[in-house]
Amino acid sequence: MLTPEWPRESEASYTETPMCRFTLYLGPPVVLDTLLIQPSHSLIRQSYHSTERAEPMNADGFGVGWFAPRLNPEPGVFHSITPAWNNLNLASLAKVVASPCVLAHVRAASPGSEVNLANCHPFRYGRYLLMHNGRLGGFRKARRRILETLTDEAFGVVRGSTDTEHLMALFVDEIVRHGGDGHGPAEDEGFDGALELATRLTEALARALQVAHEVGDGEPSFLNVAVSDGERAAVTRFGNATREGPETLYVHRGEIYEPAHRRFTQRRPYDEGAAVVVSSERLTEDPAWAAVPPNQVVAVRRGEPPRILPLGDDARILDAQPEAGGEVSVSRA
Amino acid sequence: MLTPEWPRESEASYTETPMCRFTLYLGPPVVLDTLLIQPSHSLIRQSYHSTERAEPMNADGFGVGWFAPRLNPEPGVFHSITPAWNNLNLASLAKVVASPCVLAHVRAASPGSEVNLANCHPFRYGRYLLMHNGRLGGFRKARRRILETLTDEAFGVVRGSTDTEHLMALFVDEIVRHGGDGHGPAEDEGFDGALELATRLTEALARALQVAHEVGDGEPSFLNVAVSDGERAAVTRFGNATREGPETLYVHRGEIYEPAHRRFTQRRPYDEGAAVVVSSERLTEDPAWAAVPPNQVVAVRRGEPPRILPLGDDARILDAQPEAGGEVSVSRA
Amino acid sequence: MLTPEWPRESEASYTETPMCRFTLYLGPPVVLDTLLIQPSHSLIRQSYHSTERAEPMNADGFGVGWFAPRLNPEPGVFHSITPAWNNLNLASLAKVVASPCVLAHVRAASPGSEVNLANCHPFRYGRYLLMHNGRLGGFRKARRRILETLTDEAFGVVRGSTDTEHLMALFVDEIVRHGGDGHGPAEDEGFDGALELATRLTEALARALQVAHEVGDGEPSFLNVAVSDGERAAVTRFGNATREGPETLYVHRGEIYEPAHRRFTQRRPYDEGAAVVVSSERLTEDPAWAAVPPNQVVAVRRGEPPRILPLGDDARILDAQPEAGGEVSVSRA
Amino acid sequence: MLTPEWPRESEASYTETPMCRFTLYLGPPVVLDTLLIQPSHSLIRQSYHSTERAEPMNADGFGVGWFAPRLNPEPGVFHSITPAWNNLNLASLAKVVASPCVLAHVRAASPGSEVNLANCHPFRYGRYLLMHNGRLGGFRKARRRILETLTDEAFGVVRGSTDTEHLMALFVDEIVRHGGDGHGPAEDEGFDGALELATRLTEALARALQVAHEVGDGEPSFLNVAVSDGERAAVTRFGNATREGPETLYVHRGEIYEPAHRRFTQRRPYDEGAAVVVSSERLTEDPAWAAVPPNQVVAVRRGEPPRILPLGDDARILDAQPEAGGEVSVSRA
Repeated sequence: MLTPEWPRESEASYTETPMCRFTLYLGPPVVLDTLLIQPSHSLIRQSYHSTERAEPMNADGFGVGWFAPRLNPEPGVFHSITPAWNNLNLASLAKVVASPCVLAHVRAASPGSEVNLANCHPFRYGRYLLMHNGRLGGFRKARRRILETLTDEAFGVVRGSTDTEHLMALFVDEIVRHGGDGHGPAEDEGFDGALELATRLTEALARALQVAHEVGDGEPSFLNVAVSDGERAAVTRFGNATREGPETLYVHRGEIYEPAHRRFTQRRPYDEGAAVVVSSERLTEDPAWAAVPPNQVVAVRRGEPPRILPLGDDARILDAQPEAGGEVSVSRA
Repeated sequence: MLTPEWPRESEASYTETPMCRFTLYLGPPVVLDTLLIQPSHSLIRQSYHSTERAEPMNADGFGVGWFAPRLNPEPGVFHSITPAWNNLNLASLAKVVASPCVLAHVRAASPGSEVNLANCHPFRYGRYLLMHNGRLGGFRKARRRILETLTDEAFGVVRGSTDTEHLMALFVDEIVRHGGDGHGPAEDEGFDGALELATRLTEALARALQVAHEVGDGEPSFLNVAVSDGERAAVTRFGNATREGPETLYVHRGEIYEPAHRRFTQRRPYDEGAAVVVSSERLTEDPAWAAVPPNQVVAVRRGEPPRILPLGDDARILDAQPEAGGEVSVSRA
Repeated sequence: MLTPEWPRESEASYTETPMCRFTLYLGPPVVLDTLLIQPSHSLIRQSYHSTERAEPMNADGFGVGWFAPRLNPEPGVFHSITPAWNNLNLASLAKVVASPCVLAHVRAASPGSEVNLANCHPFRYGRYLLMHNGRLGGFRKARRRILETLTDEAFGVVRGSTDTEHLMALFVDEIVRHGGDGHGPAEDEGFDGALELATRLTEALARALQVAHEVGDGEPSFLNVAVSDGERAAVTRFGNATREGPETLYVHRGEIYEPAHRRFTQRRPYDEGAAVVVSSERLTEDPAWAAVPPNQVVAVRRGEPPRILPLGDDARILDAQPEAGGEVSVSRA
Repeated sequence: MLTPEWPRESEASYTETPMCRFTLYLGPPVVLDTLLIQPSHSLIRQSYHSTERAEPMNADGFGVGWFAPRLNPEPGVFHSITPAWNNLNLASLAKVVASPCVLAHVRAASPGSEVNLANCHPFRYGRYLLMHNGRLGGFRKARRRILETLTDEAFGVVRGSTDTEHLMALFVDEIVRHGGDGHGPAEDEGFDGALELATRLTEALARALQVAHEVGDGEPSFLNVAVSDGERAAVTRFGNATREGPETLYVHRGEIYEPAHRRFTQRRPYDEGAAVVVSSERLTEDPAWAAVPPNQVVAVRRGEPPRILPLGDDARILDAQPEAGGEVSVSRA
């Protein structure tokens, strides 16, 4: 009988740090297939062959969350632990579901790490959806301390063991501490509502980074995080590594998106039909995609141009004076 | 070392003949949750505790097919090999999807039999969905002969190994042989279209029964089969056992369905808002449920009362003269 | 469009309190099929039709853990979220795997509750396996307090959100606080080792009950819990409800188990070949099955008769003087 | 509402022709982990990052079949539709299962093609396991004709819709037509038994190619196929494309395999402890791996050196005179 030495499980980890990919859409109702599958470089195709990362695969499950505001103020989610590209349910429902707000995520877990439904993005709390591309440095040590800081309501959100779920709990904690309850439809508060959402999100990230800084060993964090309530969205591009920038993030802005030749094309300026897409990678070859600069947060309100606000080293918004500026300029990629 | 004798796999079969359960809906758009989960005796609750069968469980997977005619002439399907009652994806999407035509099925496979996605109902071909509660007697022997009778187009439909999939192939064969192609939206041909659909279905069943009669050992067949193209539907209640009747089947007729107190209630007579539900078991305690008599087929056209036509011993329609009669009376259960 | 009122998720809970079923085996190598499938009332058949509970189904996943001491000091586990009776992988591997120590579990989750791989029993920590039939009363409120009491090592065990996983963490906490590390092979410490294991387990349960008592609303707990390191095992039958007893538990004792006519039969008195089975239900109609009285713990060491020790209302062992007694008498069921 | 044109499903096919990867082992009992996971370029790592193909992923499910001859003459199989590298069940059972004959396969399905358990390799019939890397050209058209040529016994093997399952049925057909029944333990017939197995396999492939030639459109076939009964094995490397060779195939020969530093090392010449590995890619950097030349079949009998026999353009063995030669020389890669 061959008798190998048995390595502890921790040894079994491979060296790569896999990252995920996500796409957020806010606009007129879009058929999911049109957004997630048909574009030449759609998220589902990214799950098969990502072009902007050395490691091309995002095959450890996926998730799609979408809003159907006429039916339910709270969104639905569809999660799977199989790769997105071969999931027959996803392919089928994507052709018969349209939505004015979609968050989709393909996951690249570390080989050997846990892949189960409880760990699939986007995470949902009431009317909020949240998804993440990256990692919180030192999470293993920070996890416990993060839990200790939570209200009971936010603590109850944590059902699995990933860093993202703890970021979600911190976000819920921020909502609850500011008097929100997350349930029922979103109220319209103008663009201030989008800024408020961005503030809640970045405060949550700042708290996570603070704990990681106190208890961790200095591992860098990569926090591209998207959150939405169906009418507003906030998406960060953040990293604090010294040698490499944060994960990529792009915004498609200023035009309605229509699927022609499986690409989005530009038609008209912002109006009630305007749509915004924020995505880890450009979904099409359309030149209208703009790269979000490092350490910024994109704030979006339905029907308005997105604004991009700078973040400090602690991930907090540096200057969120909505009355002071108009649309923050987006540099072309 | 304990060394048991090894039985061949065929010995491992248990004695019960499990049956499935299904629900078909045709009417104004209904939120799936309202139809499939909330009713006091909904299909999902039936999957947990069926009341009209000795064996209460339907836990070997499920499927839901639904039409979204404004988005796609062909329906979507969602299948799973896990029990319906604990499927988080189903629970979530049922709250954010509404449809004017829904077919749902919970499966009770024989213990030890194969449970995989390819065997989940409803089966889809172009704009048609088909699902089955029962079994074709002698299928194991009849399978090969059935395949031999098919056109290439219908043969290509068969991807798994269950009797239902072969009934589906025979149905497609009937469609193709009569000049249909199954793709694209259904044309409106009045109630004649519903009768034609019922004829295609019952001809397919008759062919299956004929082969089973020729090559089988006389095992009885139970063929409660539902088919729809989103605008029309046909549902059989058929059996040819000498000692027991076919599986149960009920129709809810004459009123719109609304979810009040998790039950459907009656509101108004047939008009454009009328809805028809055909279901293996009554979903609610509403007295409007009527039992379909044995060996009949229910033909449904959107917005009209369902008609019930008698079937012969060979499962063929005995008299389908739509001009001769009005609504066939449904006997109260 | 039909517009139902949307109940909060908490309303969706059904009324039943489902329980699970488990079987633990310690003896000469047994083919898993012989233990788990072939017996007339095996665990897999229990998953399909339990006879000792009103609610007959245990279909929300299952798990099997087994030891292969010549290959690895730590056991393997196989978990699935599909019902045990239709899992082709389980049926197949059960015929080609033999083991001297097996723990198997079929789960009946509450309808609507979460069924995912992270929640499947048995849970593993190093060489220990643990599984549970029942519930910790008031767990929702107690969860956070339990986590606060844990060492970091034990805290790291918790990856999901079920009460059992938290009992597991408390058990690991007891191991760690008493100088164990759980990894590598078990040392032979005679029957004292089995008593020590039983003490660690019951201390963990006592701590959980104490927290539940302090923060809960008085809901009763049902704690049939089994733990083993491959050479020793401890299994509790415990409940503190005023009106109903704990879940059933049986011991098969005093003889070797052999699969004849798919039943276990008695052959010879305890010797090196002796086997012990502790199970939620009797697996066979063999009269050698003995019911464990309420609020007792069964302590097992390989090759010795099991001893049964009484537990106090706090789940602690009342009198664990191994030198004082021989085999504790087991009352016939 | 955005209204895309709906492509037929056939349009959704992507351009790549994905291939699979497999490993066959015949030798002294080997811990699965040692064979499938630990080697620096093991099959599981190939599933994550294949080095010998442009398309690096094999993430559409996997399967492992293994023999436990002291427990059962027929092998067990473990299949999954999730990627091999993140399957916790595989990782766990691989550490507690050892076997003297293992066949393992990672699948790369075409995007959009069907991934379900019925399509996972290796396929089993009685004591035989079969797996395939490649494709039968023109299968879609050939499928029906292949089925027509089968005995009823072989026809009954087909439960899914892939080309490999039809190759399996043809192989079973050859077994049955030559008086075998495939059940019970393999008899020892010396090396002739291995040659007979190779003949059955290549005859099956030849029949498939003949049908494909008659009804197909000239698409090339790639037929790297492995079959074993636990004591003997045959593995083809075959292709008939004009511009590209068959898929790669390697043999590790002449030495026992031991896991040192996660590599196999050479120790001693062939004797009763000798092991043979045949694999799509080299599992280690050991120079003992030899490339199998195109259009050859490797015949293996337990404890003997493998022999390699040339195949004709029709996939039939050109000269199978075992008495005429000794070990066929294997050219170094």
